[in-house]
Amino acid sequence: MNDFQRRVQEGFDGQPFMKHLAARLDVVSEGSCEISVPFSPLLTQQHGFFHAGVTATLADNAGGFAAYSLMAEDEQPLTVEFKINLLEKAVGAQLIARATVLRNGRTLKVSSVEVFAVESDVETRIAVAITTVIATRIR
Amino acid sequence: MNDFQRRVQEGFDGQPFMKHLAARLDVVSEGSCEISVPFSPLLTQQHGFFHAGVTATLADNAGGFAAYSLMAEDEQPLTVEFKINLLEKAVGAQLIARATVLRNGRTLKVSSVEVFAVESDVETRIAVAITTVIATRIR
Amino acid sequence: MNDFQRRVQEGFDGQPFMKHLAARLDVVSEGSCEISVPFSPLLTQQHGFFHAGVTATLADNAGGFAAYSLMAEDEQPLTVEFKINLLEKAVGAQLIARATVLRNGRTLKVSSVEVFAVESDVETRIAVAITTVIATRIR
Amino acid sequence: MNDFQRRVQEGFDGQPFMKHLAARLDVVSEGSCEISVPFSPLLTQQHGFFHAGVTATLADNAGGFAAYSLMAEDEQPLTVEFKINLLEKAVGAQLIARATVLRNGRTLKVSSVEVFAVESDVETRIAVAITTVIATRIR
Repeated sequence: MNDFQRRVQEGFDGQPFMKHLAARLDVVSEGSCEISVPFSPLLTQQHGFFHAGVTATLADNAGGFAAYSLMAEDEQPLTVEFKINLLEKAVGAQLIARATVLRNGRTLKVSSVEVFAVESDVETRIAVAITTVIATRIR
Repeated sequence: MNDFQRRVQEGFDGQPFMKHLAARLDVVSEGSCEISVPFSPLLTQQHGFFHAGVTATLADNAGGFAAYSLMAEDEQPLTVEFKINLLEKAVGAQLIARATVLRNGRTLKVSSVEVFAVESDVETRIAVAITTVIATRIR
Repeated sequence: MNDFQRRVQEGFDGQPFMKHLAARLDVVSEGSCEISVPFSPLLTQQHGFFHAGVTATLADNAGGFAAYSLMAEDEQPLTVEFKINLLEKAVGAQLIARATVLRNGRTLKVSSVEVFAVESDVETRIAVAITTVIATRIR
Repeated sequence: MNDFQRRVQEGFDGQPFMKHLAARLDVVSEGSCEISVPFSPLLTQQHGFFHAGVTATLADNAGGFAAYSLMAEDEQPLTVEFKINLLEKAVGAQLIARATVLRNGRTLKVSSVEVFAVESDVETRIAVAITTVIATRIR
């Protein structure tokens, strides 16, 4: 495990809300990140699908940690804004968000994110997002 | 309580994820909606603030239920997309999302949303969002 | 005319594309800005309405110059991103974009923008946008 | 030239604003579209780059015509909303916007768009956008 992977993992583990969703950090490489969450009735909306808030949370966080993987030791990621299009019903045994940094600026990093619902090894892309993340020095 | 208020309340109560966040539907009028969530350590990110996913979930849902308040009996709201800008740290005893429908189209409704962090009766606007909601007939 | 008004006016006059659209900078105050463009057949799409690209250009620029009005002498605004919802047909004798800065951060400024179509003194809000602008030092 | 290509070309030719920008429809296939515009001092902002409004116009239109290529005879595309991130300076001999439909819904089509600046055959991705387009029946 590299330094940036350790930092991203620690950042992820330091977020109680990820535990509350039972989300997992699956993959981190330089400039990309994958986060998943298994289905639970606790995470659903009125039709039994994953709530859009869960999908958005995963997209935001995958974009943020992909950006974090490229930051300096003393920098922390803060989401400036994101936009998400929900393409299909979020139905499946799990959701997976995959993010890639499109622009690795010194101050701002922009990530492209796709979210998939997985059922019996079939992945359906249910959402796409673009996130803007700023590198801050919070102590 | 009017018919549309009853429908919005039932829609809200039918979302297990709202219970998982301990969120409350506070106000519903025709074309607007207010949802809040009290602070809990379960909902935080690495600095102890509300997680951006919580803020986004509240914004999305307030926009969706504001739209729902204007829909016909047999219609259900589905978020097409939303965009959120996180303006300030989400620090406070609770978050409140207030949504107003800007465009009440037959198929698409567009809501403007503001999210506030509340501490000792002082409200700070921590996020703004625009959401697009489609009226569907899911049975 | 204050210093910031002079700078914004000079910035606006320095954009040939504004002249190409026959756009005017109507009002500038600290943290807000209004830009308009009279109707011309040159600016239309296939139904004779203002092209969405004109609406978007006005929204972007109003947001950017509202941000610029709050910047230091040696700073220039650069749009990081914007999102626009087109609410109604852009039909009228002119379009007016009005922008207000929602967050005046040191590095990033976020503006809320409304675009109106004006016909016989009646204003119709045809679009809303949120823009994120960064203060840069380009020489 | 197929039927959908003829319709897209006619739709493009029917937009006077495209002529005002000297934009060209370069490629159309089912669910994708490419539009370009050569550099002109008329299209610039204060630093001599392409104005962000030109980039946004190209992105919006490429997304819209990609969607149009999948519509029925009697349908017309109308942009509901779009979001664009400006990644790099728009410097070059021309801009090219390439759009692909991500979701081909009956009512709503969602496109992903990349915009490139081209200089001496080198393409630099200067912007990414997501657009939502509705199929309407305007007569």
